[in-house]
Amino acid sequence: MTLAQSILSGDRLALTRLLTQVENQTAEGRAALVELFPHTGRAHLIGVTGSPGTGKSSLVNQLALHYRKQVDPPKRVAVIAVDPSSPFTGGAVLGDRVRMRDLAGDPDVFIRSMASRGSLGGLAQTSAAVAQVFDAAGYDLILIETVGAGQSEVEIAELAHTTLVVEAPGLGDDIQAIKAGILEIADILVVNKADRSGADSTERALKNMLELAHPARKVFRHHGREMLVEAPQDDQPETLWLPPIIQTVASQGTGTAELAEAIEKHAAHLRSSGDWAARERARLEVEVEALLQEVLVSRFRSAIPEKEIEKLLSQVVNRQLSPWEAVDLLVAGRAE
Amino acid sequence: MTLAQSILSGDRLALTRLLTQVENQTAEGRAALVELFPHTGRAHLIGVTGSPGTGKSSLVNQLALHYRKQVDPPKRVAVIAVDPSSPFTGGAVLGDRVRMRDLAGDPDVFIRSMASRGSLGGLAQTSAAVAQVFDAAGYDLILIETVGAGQSEVEIAELAHTTLVVEAPGLGDDIQAIKAGILEIADILVVNKADRSGADSTERALKNMLELAHPARKVFRHHGREMLVEAPQDDQPETLWLPPIIQTVASQGTGTAELAEAIEKHAAHLRSSGDWAARERARLEVEVEALLQEVLVSRFRSAIPEKEIEKLLSQVVNRQLSPWEAVDLLVAGRAE
Repeated sequence: MTLAQSILSGDRLALTRLLTQVENQTAEGRAALVELFPHTGRAHLIGVTGSPGTGKSSLVNQLALHYRKQVDPPKRVAVIAVDPSSPFTGGAVLGDRVRMRDLAGDPDVFIRSMASRGSLGGLAQTSAAVAQVFDAAGYDLILIETVGAGQSEVEIAELAHTTLVVEAPGLGDDIQAIKAGILEIADILVVNKADRSGADSTERALKNMLELAHPARKVFRHHGREMLVEAPQDDQPETLWLPPIIQTVASQGTGTAELAEAIEKHAAHLRSSGDWAARERARLEVEVEALLQEVLVSRFRSAIPEKEIEKLLSQVVNRQLSPWEAVDLLVAGRAE
Repeated sequence: MTLAQSILSGDRLALTRLLTQVENQTAEGRAALVELFPHTGRAHLIGVTGSPGTGKSSLVNQLALHYRKQVDPPKRVAVIAVDPSSPFTGGAVLGDRVRMRDLAGDPDVFIRSMASRGSLGGLAQTSAAVAQVFDAAGYDLILIETVGAGQSEVEIAELAHTTLVVEAPGLGDDIQAIKAGILEIADILVVNKADRSGADSTERALKNMLELAHPARKVFRHHGREMLVEAPQDDQPETLWLPPIIQTVASQGTGTAELAEAIEKHAAHLRSSGDWAARERARLEVEVEALLQEVLVSRFRSAIPEKEIEKLLSQVVNRQLSPWEAVDLLVAGRAE
């Protein structure tokens, strides 16, 4: 039985093994991904992003609990907790114990923490591959949690069908400024820690920003390419999704059911509007392009002696050649 | 006179025009970059990064003021304020008025806010190109400020010879967790807002983390590649740089002189240890590789009809082909 077959038959140990292979980008991992790919495309991918201090991890925990205990039949839930701020240590900062206590021992919940190894592009690619593994393994919901609100996190969140942006009251002005950018990727806005003072004014501020931003456009963005979907005509307002704002107190489980309901509604909207298919296509296009890039570069580099590249680089360092001229020489195949 | 020649002769309007060309990646901009490249390599590039709320912008402002008013002869200062969290609006959130009030009208200070357009890779590349323009234009110090602490910001900070990581007291646990990763890129640590309670304990916490991290290794990291410099032998301890921790209150200008002194010391250390040249080389290598990638992919794509790519992509969306198989077909040139 291949590794992929073991996973399709529900072997959890095989799943763990493949995730490690995928993260380390081994040939065995890649072979299994190819074999599993026809079995993907069923899961609902949910991105969860927002600034530090908003309580994303607890919220993800509560959502997982909800899908396990409050939904009939219970859904199978995978969590990918990505921490791009830790590129070198390899530590999994996000594998916190709160989660474990509530969900440990449940075979239909799988939590995987990923620290960044290598480049950001690599991290987004690896997250996509890990999501595919969970998808093929039959997890219904895949929650992709990213810490922070930089562009790296945005790109990872864009893997998702549905993106939650989490805010909390009273996080300061600097964070206010960030919201402007992050708001545009939100399908659902969450004001967590809503028992704190200022929750209502945070909600009001978000509402104002939403009104300014909408309904001019709804955009799919992937690696800098924008696929604009024009605002609908007046006679078909139902094609537009206006991000709802949900107040939660994740530490007490308050608001989780409402949030799950909003997620459900968004999935229904995506399917009825055709956006689900459009997002799938955009996502897979990004994946194909990233792979293409990787293959082209490695093919090219293996055809050129390392010494030649080193020599050109020295000329660049000495300012005898500009980087553009060096690349022209390399590509023209007459570097000397 | 070419655009590049105008810039070399000190024409500020030409400089502004080229920056826009570079950001828009025009052919004219690229030609000017090639012409300017031999004139680069003199500026000291200083990255400034840290979490939201730490007061990075004010600190950068104070540093610029210091180099203009407290140093004899005054240094020419450029600031590149990058905001990767705002990928779509194109707004320059960071061009704040505090700066303008203190530094406006000084022809030897140039502040450029950049919002992300396109991919993160694109943003790091564009920042590098903008820094080259300032370098060729004779700016002595180039401060590259990034909001946030995700990997995107790390990559941008790595353009620099010297990286400042800014912290502030009392930003919460989530941010504590981030420090572990960000600490590894710090050449100098700044505890800003040091008049707040908790400044000393923040400094102590940083010191503890530094002691845990050092002196095992000092690393250059570029796009996931690690160039490990082993810890020095006991008989040559002077080759190791231990990041100092500087307390500042940027809103009052406190500590700026000490910070500038630490920056100066770091530059001297880089030069005497050979690290300056090593960082230059690593940086230019990353730039050459990014360009190579860009050229290879665009050459490849222009040789293949868009329709063919679309057709393969549809097969991927329908799960008839995996992304890996699609790329193999594309590269083998027998996609059908």
